[in-house]
Amino acid sequence: MADKTSSTLTLNRLSVYLRCLGHLQSEGTKTVSSLEMAERFHLSSSQIRKDLAHFGEFGVRGVGYEVDVLANRLHSLLGLDVQHRLILVGVGNLGSALAAYFGFNDDSFQVVAGVDHDPSRIGTRVGRVVVRPADELPAVVRETGADIGVITVPAVSAEWALDALIEAGVRSILNFAPVLLNSPAEVLLKNVDMRIHLEEVAYYLKDSSPPES
Amino acid sequence: MADKTSSTLTLNRLSVYLRCLGHLQSEGTKTVSSLEMAERFHLSSSQIRKDLAHFGEFGVRGVGYEVDVLANRLHSLLGLDVQHRLILVGVGNLGSALAAYFGFNDDSFQVVAGVDHDPSRIGTRVGRVVVRPADELPAVVRETGADIGVITVPAVSAEWALDALIEAGVRSILNFAPVLLNSPAEVLLKNVDMRIHLEEVAYYLKDSSPPES
Repeated sequence: MADKTSSTLTLNRLSVYLRCLGHLQSEGTKTVSSLEMAERFHLSSSQIRKDLAHFGEFGVRGVGYEVDVLANRLHSLLGLDVQHRLILVGVGNLGSALAAYFGFNDDSFQVVAGVDHDPSRIGTRVGRVVVRPADELPAVVRETGADIGVITVPAVSAEWALDALIEAGVRSILNFAPVLLNSPAEVLLKNVDMRIHLEEVAYYLKDSSPPES
Repeated sequence: MADKTSSTLTLNRLSVYLRCLGHLQSEGTKTVSSLEMAERFHLSSSQIRKDLAHFGEFGVRGVGYEVDVLANRLHSLLGLDVQHRLILVGVGNLGSALAAYFGFNDDSFQVVAGVDHDPSRIGTRVGRVVVRPADELPAVVRETGADIGVITVPAVSAEWALDALIEAGVRSILNFAPVLLNSPAEVLLKNVDMRIHLEEVAYYLKDSSPPES
């Protein structure tokens, strides 16, 4: 993996493969070839072979990959055999939805804290976690050992949330607020732009749009 | 754009450029070089030049791109000068959060309908839209002219939502439910996997994790 950009794309594909393998596991499938996997999940078989060769050869010639073995290897390669501790900054609709989506507690990720500026949300629960006031963020991070910050506040508060997380020592941050944030080099900040998917779908509708009358 | 996969990646980058240009416009910046844009937003300048060359040359030699002109061209290239009509299938936390995130009504996208299986949500509002029963989906699509379906139901109902949207004639669908769906070739279905971002961040934490004791 030559640089940050290519490694991010590769990592995202490994996550996709892992999800597909989970699908196959739930169906009791024991082996799969790159071609079968590509057809089943609409992926590129040459890309699968290339990506997996990158991390060592798991395939058995003529049979394909052993589903359980490959899933375990990817799980561990992605760092998912360590449980990470998430703090949600903002527990409105977006924060609550993402917490439920990520799962409140699985082997890899656990929601350990939630903070909010809105007094009406303080003391309520997100999963098993009781929401605390936003200005207690540093103490909450210290007490819970949160190592991933998830920013789910409105755009106007996103910069505040980022600064507060960094100040509290959190070094990995996902920003779901609809605003582009910048971080110092020592902090891994990922801006997630969900509108991109909507724009992608809009592009493909272009050709099939009825002509304007 | 040779195939579907490469065009998706290019499209997603164009969306990112458009967001960056919006940022520059809000600051009153009139021109920007690919190098300035790359440094400012942590992108690759050679990639920017390549992507934008793809769609014709907008740059002025020695000065860079005219921000307004480039933004307008990308906006139109992405099909955003046509307003698309979204129907939300599922208006719990995720549906409500995404509707707010996408904006209930802007030049490119308008939330025109929301349906849900949960009786307690029927008759409530998402933005200016009154939530209707899920089994009225075909009528709702017909009445509102919705052309993009957004699936935000729990995983167990996602397959139902997909079938209902296709049956109602919706041909562009975004699936935000945490399950991988498949569609017939004539339907554009985009499975959005938000957990990918969490796994990406987890990977980068691997090196900096304290050793297990």
